[in-house]
Amino acid sequence: MFTINPLNKQYQDEFKAVIDNKTKPPGSLGLLENCALQLALIQHQGQEKPNKALVINKPTMLVFAGDHGIAAHGISIAPSAVTRQMVLNFIAGGAAINCFCRTNNIDFKVIDTGIIEPLAADKQGDAEVFIEQRLGQGTRDFSVESAMTLAQVEQGLALGANAAENSIKQGCNLLLLGEMGIGNTSSAAAIFAKLSQQPANECVGLGTGIDDQQLVEKKRLIDLALTRNFSDQPKTVLSEVGGFEIVQMVGAILAAAQAGITVLIDGFIVTSAALVAYRMHPEVREYLIFAHQSNEQAHLAMLAELNAEPLLNLGLRLGEGTGAALALPMLQASVSFYNDMASFSSAGITV
Amino acid sequence: MFTINPLNKQYQDEFKAVIDNKTKPPGSLGLLENCALQLALIQHQGQEKPNKALVINKPTMLVFAGDHGIAAHGISIAPSAVTRQMVLNFIAGGAAINCFCRTNNIDFKVIDTGIIEPLAADKQGDAEVFIEQRLGQGTRDFSVESAMTLAQVEQGLALGANAAENSIKQGCNLLLLGEMGIGNTSSAAAIFAKLSQQPANECVGLGTGIDDQQLVEKKRLIDLALTRNFSDQPKTVLSEVGGFEIVQMVGAILAAAQAGITVLIDGFIVTSAALVAYRMHPEVREYLIFAHQSNEQAHLAMLAELNAEPLLNLGLRLGEGTGAALALPMLQASVSFYNDMASFSSAGITV
Repeated sequence: MFTINPLNKQYQDEFKAVIDNKTKPPGSLGLLENCALQLALIQHQGQEKPNKALVINKPTMLVFAGDHGIAAHGISIAPSAVTRQMVLNFIAGGAAINCFCRTNNIDFKVIDTGIIEPLAADKQGDAEVFIEQRLGQGTRDFSVESAMTLAQVEQGLALGANAAENSIKQGCNLLLLGEMGIGNTSSAAAIFAKLSQQPANECVGLGTGIDDQQLVEKKRLIDLALTRNFSDQPKTVLSEVGGFEIVQMVGAILAAAQAGITVLIDGFIVTSAALVAYRMHPEVREYLIFAHQSNEQAHLAMLAELNAEPLLNLGLRLGEGTGAALALPMLQASVSFYNDMASFSSAGITV
Repeated sequence: MFTINPLNKQYQDEFKAVIDNKTKPPGSLGLLENCALQLALIQHQGQEKPNKALVINKPTMLVFAGDHGIAAHGISIAPSAVTRQMVLNFIAGGAAINCFCRTNNIDFKVIDTGIIEPLAADKQGDAEVFIEQRLGQGTRDFSVESAMTLAQVEQGLALGANAAENSIKQGCNLLLLGEMGIGNTSSAAAIFAKLSQQPANECVGLGTGIDDQQLVEKKRLIDLALTRNFSDQPKTVLSEVGGFEIVQMVGAILAAAQAGITVLIDGFIVTSAALVAYRMHPEVREYLIFAHQSNEQAHLAMLAELNAEPLLNLGLRLGEGTGAALALPMLQASVSFYNDMASFSSAGITV
C-alpha cells in the first residue's frame, strides 16, 4: 500500500562537512546538528549536488480526534463527551494547540476520525480547519472485543494518508501530528505492550492525570485485552486495541514518508502510531523527528524502541500536538544555521 | 547600588486560577505554566487587578565579549584571537546566535567589554549592533593574580547596567544574555567553585571541547587560584577570578531586575553571572528564567544552587546566548496560552 524510499546517503559526508565548517566547535549545537543533517538528507533526495538551501514550507498540524469504547470504564480524567467538546474548541481556536500553532505560524486542521457524536454541519466551522473522515461512532471497548475491524483499519490508513497528501499538495513539506481522544493513552499503552512484549504494568501511565484506583483498573483492562493472544502483526494490533485517530495517524505518517517529507512526532499517542508505522515499514523512521518526551511514564521506553532522542522535555502531558508545535522553532533554527551561518573560511576565523 | 523589589505575590492565586481554568488538565503544560505564572508576577507589579494581557516586547539579546589572561595557558580549544574574530562575525551577522536571533525575532547587540585588541572604528559596523565599553585589554591571568581590580568590578557593573537600561529605554521588557570569551568557562568554574565551596574538580568541565590533558591543566590552574584564599564576597570573587564580560553581565542582570523586567539566562557562563548577582541581591532570582542546561558538566550543580529548572536540554555547548535565543519561543508560547486560550466555561467544556 505504501512505498517508502530509504534515504539516499550518498552525500551525507558533504552535509556533515557543511555543518562542521560553520563557525562553531563541531557538535556544539547538539541536537540541532542532528536535525539539520536529517533535514538535509530528506530534502536532497535525488539531488546531485548538496548545495541547496534547506526550507520548511507551510508546516501543517493535523490533529486527529476519535473516541474510545474503553473510556466507558472511567479510566480517564474526563468522559468521552469531552472529545467532542474539545473538537469544537479546536475549531473555535481556543485550545492550547491553537495558541501554539498561531505563535509558531503553523497551519492547523482537526480531523474527526470517529468521535461518538458527529458535529452538526453548522458547528463544523471553516472547511479549511475541519475535516470529517469518520470510521464509526467511537471504537468498541477493546478490553472485551477488538476495537475495530480489519476493514476499518484499511480504510483508516487510506483516510489518514489522504489527509497528509492533501496538505502536501498544498505545499506543506513538514507535517506535525497531534491527537485528541478521551481514553487514547489506554490504546497507545496496549499497542506498546503488544509490540514491545512488555507487561501492561510497564506500559501504562497516568495519562493526563488519573488517580491510583483508575490506574489499577486501566492496567487490568489492558491486561484483559492482551489475554486474547492476538498476533503482533501491526494491522492486527491496530484492529484489536487501536483507536480511529491512531490508525489514521499511521496512514498519515506513512503517506508523508512516501512523499519524502519530514514528520514531527508529538508525545505518547502519536509515538505509538509512529511505532506501528515503523513496524509496517522500517524505512519510515528516517523521516521522523521526535518533538518531546511526554510525562507519560512509558514514553521514554517507547522512544527507545524507535531509537529516538526527542528535542524537548517540558513536562507536558496534554497531547493535541502541543509538543510538536513547540518543537518547530528548533527545526527552523536548524535550517537557519545550516543555510545562513558563516563558515570558518568565510568569516576569517583561524582555529 | 541596585534596589530590587521582591515580586508582589498578592495576586498569585488569581494568576494561578487563570492558568488552571484554561481548557487543559491542571499542570499539563508543564514548565510553560511556571513561565506564565512567573511572567504574570513580574509584569503585574503594582497593578491592582490581574486581568492585563502578558506581553513580550522587543526581546533583546546582549552578547558580552571579553578576553581572559588565563587563556594564555592553552586550556581552551582556541586562542584568544578567536574572541575578536567572533566579535567581527557577530557584527557581520554570521554566527549561530545571529541566525537564531533572526529566526526568533530578537534584537541583537554585541558588547566589547575588554577583548585584547579593540576593533578599529571601520570594523565596528552599525552602532545599533556594536557597543564598546572596555574594562581593559583582557583580564590578568587569574591563576597567578587577581583578574581585575575592585575598581574595574565597580565600573563593569555600572557599564553592564547601562547596556541593559538602554535596551529597556528602547522598549525591551525581556532581556536575553549571551557571551563570548576564550577561556571564560575557566572563570565561570572558578567563580562557582568559590561560591559553592566545592573543589575545582567538581566545577570544571570540557568547555567547548578540550582534551584530557587540557582538562587536567585547567583544574590545576583553578585550584592554584583558589589557594589565594580570598573572601567569598561576590565583588571580591569577581575581582579575583571573574571576567570582564561576566562582571558586565552581573550588572545587566541586576539592572534588569531593578527595572522590573525578565531576564532569560543562557548556559554555564551566564549562569555564573546570575549566581553572583543572586549572592549580591537574592531578590533578583524571581526575575530570572533559565533557558537551557548546557553540556558543561557542572552546569546542573550550578543551576541547583539557584533552584533553577531550565527549559531546554539540547546538548548545546556553544555559548553566545544560543540557548537563550532558542528558548524564547517557549516564553512566547507561555504568553500566548495565558492570554488567548479558552477557559472551561468560555468553551463549554463540562469536565
